[in-house]
Amino acid sequence: MIRRVQHIGLAVRDLDAAIALYERAFGISPEHRDRSEAEGVEAAMFQVAGVGIELMQPMRDDSPVGKFLERRGEGVHHVAFGVDDVAAAMEDVRAAGLEPLDGEPRPGLHGTRVGFIHPRSAGGVLIELVEADGEGGAT
Amino acid sequence: MIRRVQHIGLAVRDLDAAIALYERAFGISPEHRDRSEAEGVEAAMFQVAGVGIELMQPMRDDSPVGKFLERRGEGVHHVAFGVDDVAAAMEDVRAAGLEPLDGEPRPGLHGTRVGFIHPRSAGGVLIELVEADGEGGAT
Repeated sequence: MIRRVQHIGLAVRDLDAAIALYERAFGISPEHRDRSEAEGVEAAMFQVAGVGIELMQPMRDDSPVGKFLERRGEGVHHVAFGVDDVAAAMEDVRAAGLEPLDGEPRPGLHGTRVGFIHPRSAGGVLIELVEADGEGGAT
Repeated sequence: MIRRVQHIGLAVRDLDAAIALYERAFGISPEHRDRSEAEGVEAAMFQVAGVGIELMQPMRDDSPVGKFLERRGEGVHHVAFGVDDVAAAMEDVRAAGLEPLDGEPRPGLHGTRVGFIHPRSAGGVLIELVEADGEGGAT
């Protein structure tokens, strides 16, 4: 069972420009900024009343976010739901007929454990399941 | 300034099937279901720790959601941010260089006032600004 909307991930071509736009238009500033060589992505995370807005710029055209931009253009890349136990949640969604992209939970940013669900099985939405410390108590 | 992520809108082809999928896979049930003849859409709203997940099926192919499905397929249609004053927020985003789709705020569902921002000005994301009763106190 999902507990909350943990964050929304947006694919952008120019991270600095997108951060500036969100600051100017919506009055919010990123809490942190990270690069993942493994994922080929640089990302900034805003927090809005406990829900993250993650802006992601690919570092390489052949990275997952780079290929998404090529195929779909800028826009919403994924939606992340917080769960108590990501391994159990992945079993639940598999039993419900969805297709996990990961066989096992894998490490996410900031000590989280994550698993993704293929959008073709979930109404065109790439869904991330996230287990974070204290996730069960989040409101 | 945005106060919170109010809801995420997803375009689906078959609302009953999508509701059943969310119930089965994620353990959540819709709080209400509405039809809008004006928008040509039938929608079900789930609440997950205060953030809405809105599943929308078009009633006609030439409705906004119908045209979205034709062009993009199923997936995330819009992201809604809660604001204290939607008229003021639309002035702010216009001043920041974004393009409102509505000249004036217009009535949304459940007594809200809403305004939309064109995705071409906002990183490919159709953004809805929502003013609801007590929005300023939302957390």
